[in-house]
Amino acid sequence: MTSATEYAQTLIRCESVTPDEAGALAYLERELGAAGFACERLRFSEPGTADVENLYARIGDGTPHICFAGHIDVVPPGDEAAWRLPPFAGEIENGVLYGRGAVDMKGAVAASLAAALEYLREKPDLVGSISFLITADEEGPSVNGTRKVVERLIERGERPDACVLGECTSEDAVADTIKIGRRGSLGAELIVRGIQGHVAYPQKARNPLPALIDALTRLKARRLDDGSEHFQPSNLEITTIDTGNKATNIIPAQASARFNIRFNDLHTAPQLKAWIEEEVAAALLDTGVEHTLNFDQPSDSFLTSPGGFVKMLGAAVQAETGREPVLSTGGGTSDARFIKDMCPVAELGLLNATAHKVDEHTATADIETLARIYKRFLHLAIG
Amino acid sequence: MTSATEYAQTLIRCESVTPDEAGALAYLERELGAAGFACERLRFSEPGTADVENLYARIGDGTPHICFAGHIDVVPPGDEAAWRLPPFAGEIENGVLYGRGAVDMKGAVAASLAAALEYLREKPDLVGSISFLITADEEGPSVNGTRKVVERLIERGERPDACVLGECTSEDAVADTIKIGRRGSLGAELIVRGIQGHVAYPQKARNPLPALIDALTRLKARRLDDGSEHFQPSNLEITTIDTGNKATNIIPAQASARFNIRFNDLHTAPQLKAWIEEEVAAALLDTGVEHTLNFDQPSDSFLTSPGGFVKMLGAAVQAETGREPVLSTGGGTSDARFIKDMCPVAELGLLNATAHKVDEHTATADIETLARIYKRFLHLAIG
Ligand SMILES: [Zn+2]
Ligand SMILES: [Zn+2]
Repeated sequence: MTSATEYAQTLIRCESVTPDEAGALAYLERELGAAGFACERLRFSEPGTADVENLYARIGDGTPHICFAGHIDVVPPGDEAAWRLPPFAGEIENGVLYGRGAVDMKGAVAASLAAALEYLREKPDLVGSISFLITADEEGPSVNGTRKVVERLIERGERPDACVLGECTSEDAVADTIKIGRRGSLGAELIVRGIQGHVAYPQKARNPLPALIDALTRLKARRLDDGSEHFQPSNLEITTIDTGNKATNIIPAQASARFNIRFNDLHTAPQLKAWIEEEVAAALLDTGVEHTLNFDQPSDSFLTSPGGFVKMLGAAVQAETGREPVLSTGGGTSDARFIKDMCPVAELGLLNATAHKVDEHTATADIETLARIYKRFLHLAIG
Repeated sequence: MTSATEYAQTLIRCESVTPDEAGALAYLERELGAAGFACERLRFSEPGTADVENLYARIGDGTPHICFAGHIDVVPPGDEAAWRLPPFAGEIENGVLYGRGAVDMKGAVAASLAAALEYLREKPDLVGSISFLITADEEGPSVNGTRKVVERLIERGERPDACVLGECTSEDAVADTIKIGRRGSLGAELIVRGIQGHVAYPQKARNPLPALIDALTRLKARRLDDGSEHFQPSNLEITTIDTGNKATNIIPAQASARFNIRFNDLHTAPQLKAWIEEEVAAALLDTGVEHTLNFDQPSDSFLTSPGGFVKMLGAAVQAETGREPVLSTGGGTSDARFIKDMCPVAELGLLNATAHKVDEHTATADIETLARIYKRFLHLAIG
């Protein structure tokens, strides 16, 4: 019987930097197939991005249907010589497993694999269904990964009842935090155009910078909200302002700025867009400065009900660790933003402290605890 | 007897793009030397800039001492094929002389040369002195040009009583405007530093951009003044704001801005610097954002008394054109900012409309009118 830690070591030894699955998906497919899962490899393409391999594996056809989602792609290790132990060796030192992906998130994928296989050994007569949705494109453009698998599953009417995504949500101790939603994100670029001229003759020019500053000041001045029941306050950050004018005596013709709003369930992207357009128009009124506003593809906020399956997941954590996990909606985006269109999703995984860093590592005990939590959750959810 | 226009043609045919005098100074030296001027070639060097040739020529040792100042260097012609007539051919078509430097300012140098030589023919027994201070570095860094010649003359106690600088001051008709001063100029760079971070975790970062915007808004908000008797209102222009952050989800660590103040005689550079430092400190107070303020070498405003020799120059204009010239302090800087430390200086030259442009040109009649004005001024000033 292979332990969760051993699965994690094998996965870390695959050098699966996005978008190369490097044998990691093949390994999962072999293990799941041997346990009776029906395995499907989904390869998606889109112009301008790399082709990506995904794995969807399911066992059982009844309900409830519990899905484990995750990614086996990792960010590059950077300077390998800077690592205490080689990033793709999967070596353990004093109970600590080192390697790129140890926490983000091969360790959690390994834990879910061990949990499911052991659950099936304990419950050979499966009542519901268990599935795995594993991509090789989470750290990259995320175009040909989970998003497209979810679309395919929705198309054919295959909707799990709940999904656990193994992103590294834990802050100080394993499983201390379950993420049940994320703020939305809206990015925008504001370009302003005036008339170039010499600083000694401002009346012959039209400086677009004061108008840009005024627009940004208005946008930054609004306190969007004070947070909501499950969410932090919404927040706008200006990320860049650029002009590129090297001549110290010339009034520039054009300038641009970018900003990003992370917003909670008190706002929607269309409402925020309308507000931004209004403020910019008000700031530029009577200035003669022209502008263009380009919005990035927004993602709306979402919240998975803290009752239902999230409660079961919390109960499993409490039983295995003795601690009640915090339900959080903080932090950046993940593939949960795609999965939430298909079914309720919660995220629970290892400690995030070393993710994307040199010497990424996890206690092997944490992997085993996570596997026990996942297995107990299957018992609670399926029976 | 060579006409002012013929002198101008010869000067234009020297391809004297800054800092290359290309024979133009040698030509002036020959003509002035032949007329009895004591000629001095002053070559100055400074690390980081090109060596520059200057010419100082003087005849007579009495007072009053009238100096004609100017430059024979020109800005590059740009795309020569775009010119109606070649930029260094000095060709005349229908009474119009084309060429780089026609108005800025070989035409005026030629007019002053013709005026002085003809004055000396009319007054062989010179009572006062006439001198020429001609540089090959006005359009460039202006480090080894008029500035250093003026320093040299002051050092040896040689101060003209008045100086006429032949910059192209005329707006609509030749000699319609005499410049008797300039606003001061103060440039500054403001660099702000915070802490980089992810837009999803603003509490772990410190965005320097809102602080920068606030500082610039404060600086721009102040109406510096409403102008003074001889000066336009002072004015601040932001010329660039730059961050260079290409990551749309990252709060930047640093950003910078540049701005320039053109100020009149109601302000001084040290006062303005103190005010800027105060406003920036106030804007950044309690933000945790650090900053650096770098000031460029400022130039203070100056005003030449509109009485005295300026009055004589105006009378010469009125006698030759029938129009009373406007006394102005508008526009950008010129070498007058250096000459004013040595003696009273006024600027009077050809039409500025085509300066620095393709097809730079002047009516030959304007050059001859300007020569007559300069000669009449010598008669009024010296006798
Ligand atoms: Zn991840
Ligand atoms: Zn000039």
